[in-house]
Amino acid sequence: MPTNLLQKKERVDQLFSTDVKIIQNKEVFSYSVDSVLLSRFPKLPSKGKIVDLCSGNGAVGLFASSQTKAHITLVELQERLADMARRSISLNHLEEQVTIVNDDLKNLLEHVPRSQIDLILCNPPYFKASETSIKNLSEHYLLARHEITTNLDEICRVSQQALKTNGRLAMVHRPDRFLEIIDTLKTYKLAPKRIQFVYPKVGKEANMLLIEAIKDGSLEGLKILPPLFVHNEDGSYTKEISEIYFGKS
Amino acid sequence: MPTNLLQKKERVDQLFSTDVKIIQNKEVFSYSVDSVLLSRFPKLPSKGKIVDLCSGNGAVGLFASSQTKAHITLVELQERLADMARRSISLNHLEEQVTIVNDDLKNLLEHVPRSQIDLILCNPPYFKASETSIKNLSEHYLLARHEITTNLDEICRVSQQALKTNGRLAMVHRPDRFLEIIDTLKTYKLAPKRIQFVYPKVGKEANMLLIEAIKDGSLEGLKILPPLFVHNEDGSYTKEISEIYFGKS
Repeated sequence: MPTNLLQKKERVDQLFSTDVKIIQNKEVFSYSVDSVLLSRFPKLPSKGKIVDLCSGNGAVGLFASSQTKAHITLVELQERLADMARRSISLNHLEEQVTIVNDDLKNLLEHVPRSQIDLILCNPPYFKASETSIKNLSEHYLLARHEITTNLDEICRVSQQALKTNGRLAMVHRPDRFLEIIDTLKTYKLAPKRIQFVYPKVGKEANMLLIEAIKDGSLEGLKILPPLFVHNEDGSYTKEISEIYFGKS
Repeated sequence: MPTNLLQKKERVDQLFSTDVKIIQNKEVFSYSVDSVLLSRFPKLPSKGKIVDLCSGNGAVGLFASSQTKAHITLVELQERLADMARRSISLNHLEEQVTIVNDDLKNLLEHVPRSQIDLILCNPPYFKASETSIKNLSEHYLLARHEITTNLDEICRVSQQALKTNGRLAMVHRPDRFLEIIDTLKTYKLAPKRIQFVYPKVGKEANMLLIEAIKDGSLEGLKILPPLFVHNEDGSYTKEISEIYFGKS
């Protein structure tokens, strides 16, 4: 590993079900289970073009890269995170397949062609800007978690422009914003088709949702997939989650 | 039991977790798990007024009667089913608490006061009239299952009129109509607050949903409750469902 690959306090994490290594820094940004689940939620196109919006340190797009030959464009506004993603691309020798764009996602069409993207992945900021409580949050986490530099409306608008007809937007988000998510998708003619709710454990309310919408699709035929539980009663990962992290044993 | 209580081919079923007995006739109408789950889904007001729309043979409202002192009005258009409900009310000596109205639900305000209902329960026809396939369906089942004499829009409109502010509509329905349900509720200012998806067994897509909406409520704070599984792998009822049917052992 080149000695200049890692900056202070950074480390390399690996998703053991793949060979992909991701440069992380807990103080700046590190991926968690939502990124991993999002990368495994949609059926990936075998080729063509994928975009990962709000890509952070690139975890979602990099995890997806091992399952497809499609070209993947990561889009991240924060220079510090985009730089981590750039170095993770090098670390995994994925320069041919994965590109990082360090720009505001509202400028997406300056970087990819209109109406030609097969799949957009997005792990967006979950919280409204109004819910911001800045104590204990670094600026990097603040922008990644709160809708300060982008929001649901902008993500859906840009996705409608970039996706091809029948192209798909796959997003991870929070159930308490579910009604707004459905509304905003429909505003931009993105028809929800597959939804999976994620529960921290048996008997608890959902704390995450995965949703896939099709550009210009009909509003009929929504499927609610089997629920996903993250933890067993004893706090260990469930079999499903273990397999996603560590592969089938 | 009076000898004239049961008509030909009718039988009496009991939900063993309560003392309530329901007159059933498989050829005409009999309740199933969706009615039972609906009657247990919302928190029932301890007193006040409950309405059961599309009440069929009265199962939902009669099951609910054992958990509340509220007055319960059953509304059923089909004379044959309303008559079964009327006889079940007698059978359970619930004439003081439960009333059956044999009328189209669009006339609800001729039978209950406007803006004074605490809770409306509804197990409506699930299928659009356009999905009608009349083979093998008696007229009674046809009207109970297909939106021929009423529909989602009418149910929500009437509910908005009859409910008090912050009164609740609780409905059981099918996930493939989820987007339309959300939309129609919102059209009539009924804010979805609690949703529970019901899965036939582990690993399968949801085939039922329970949804509760509050009249004139805010669109914030939706909760996705823990998933409910009906059957174990071996086809037996899960512990949760057994407890609803037979009580806690």
